[in-house]
Amino acid sequence: MRNLKITLQYDGTNYVGWQRQAAGTSIQGLLEEALAPMAGGAVVVHGAGRTDAGVHALAQIATVSFGGALEAPTLARALNAVLPSDVRVLAVDEVPHEFHARFSAVGKVYEYRIVNAPIVSPFVVRYAWHVSQPLDIEAMRAASTELVGAHDFAAFQGAGSDVGSSERFVRRLEWDVGRGFELPIVMRIEGDGFLRHMVRNIVGTLVEVGVGRWPPSRVADILASRDRSGAGPTAPALGLFLVRVEY
Amino acid sequence: MRNLKITLQYDGTNYVGWQRQAAGTSIQGLLEEALAPMAGGAVVVHGAGRTDAGVHALAQIATVSFGGALEAPTLARALNAVLPSDVRVLAVDEVPHEFHARFSAVGKVYEYRIVNAPIVSPFVVRYAWHVSQPLDIEAMRAASTELVGAHDFAAFQGAGSDVGSSERFVRRLEWDVGRGFELPIVMRIEGDGFLRHMVRNIVGTLVEVGVGRWPPSRVADILASRDRSGAGPTAPALGLFLVRVEY
Repeated sequence: MRNLKITLQYDGTNYVGWQRQAAGTSIQGLLEEALAPMAGGAVVVHGAGRTDAGVHALAQIATVSFGGALEAPTLARALNAVLPSDVRVLAVDEVPHEFHARFSAVGKVYEYRIVNAPIVSPFVVRYAWHVSQPLDIEAMRAASTELVGAHDFAAFQGAGSDVGSSERFVRRLEWDVGRGFELPIVMRIEGDGFLRHMVRNIVGTLVEVGVGRWPPSRVADILASRDRSGAGPTAPALGLFLVRVEY
Repeated sequence: MRNLKITLQYDGTNYVGWQRQAAGTSIQGLLEEALAPMAGGAVVVHGAGRTDAGVHALAQIATVSFGGALEAPTLARALNAVLPSDVRVLAVDEVPHEFHARFSAVGKVYEYRIVNAPIVSPFVVRYAWHVSQPLDIEAMRAASTELVGAHDFAAFQGAGSDVGSSERFVRRLEWDVGRGFELPIVMRIEGDGFLRHMVRNIVGTLVEVGVGRWPPSRVADILASRDRSGAGPTAPALGLFLVRVEY
């Protein structure tokens, strides 16, 4: 059996997320079904991270133990021939057996996009959160600095998580200012890993600061409290992109 | 009655085009239905040009004779509140009575987008034609120069047209080179007006040159022939954007 690393890009709009669910179409399910005939039987693919329903990926990583005969580049073409056009295989690479999409990952990069204008362009509306109240980006940047570093992010963890520790290391959190109804504001966050809904809960909290409801200093208090109920709402899935997984 | 100019942006993916059809949802129909309750009765809107099914617009222009009381900026907000998110009103302006979206137009700008790579990004696939064979852009540029100027474009006119003359003036036709699966090649064409399917037929013809099937010189012959049957196929609607209407 060969160990294959698959790099995927997808528009999450029409999917229930990466992971197979009882109902609805998942990216994992699509990929497993596309691979099965090429593998000569059912396969299980492992993703670097579960993107939630509606979340997008510029470069999700999956690994699969594969017994089929197709060479990696041929396999990439064959997968793209059967997958829907909103899911694309960017690359298939043969990797050592010890490589695992999830357990070998040492870092991840996400982006979150917000259109801060009275209206949103039809060409952006599927890929950004619409916040019409003017955002004070400097206040959001000030609050963001409190989150950089090694912290217990329990206050930003979604319910239903089963991970042991809620400590994570955020090495970078930056905001690029977009303009008008076509160009989103982009938050880029990099870290060793992220808790369930952590990026979206951080965005939801920072937007409370941005609209002036909370002072930037409150974000440090929320972080220290480790209490989810004190943080802001979960920002919508459609603005979130998994940009890169680091190994 | 006031004469209102409405500037619209739309993603044409889900529509039968600008103009009302026997079946399916049109942009004109959506706009007329949204305006009716604000006008206190049925209205007819006139568009600068009929974008076909699947064609997008960055700034389509419509005019309507409007008896309602709402101020222009309020009307824009009210329309956006009821229109679907893939159709946005960018502006509503009060204009002199002699101004007509179609008959006052003196020029139009279109763009056509092509992804020239083995695959297309899921974030671009709704907005570009996928041509996987490598395109010789220099050959396409050379052929394009033959089309600039005042010509009889009958060879590039779609069937079912009812216009009198097929003479048009193309003042500019340029290609910007995109790169890879995410960044489309963009053709920009500017002129006093365009025949039915003219831009898409020009693109389909120039792509025949780009893939090396025809020499650039053949485009001049096709133009001179005034015979549609000698030109290339009609490029798909999804790559076409109405960029601007000039008055």
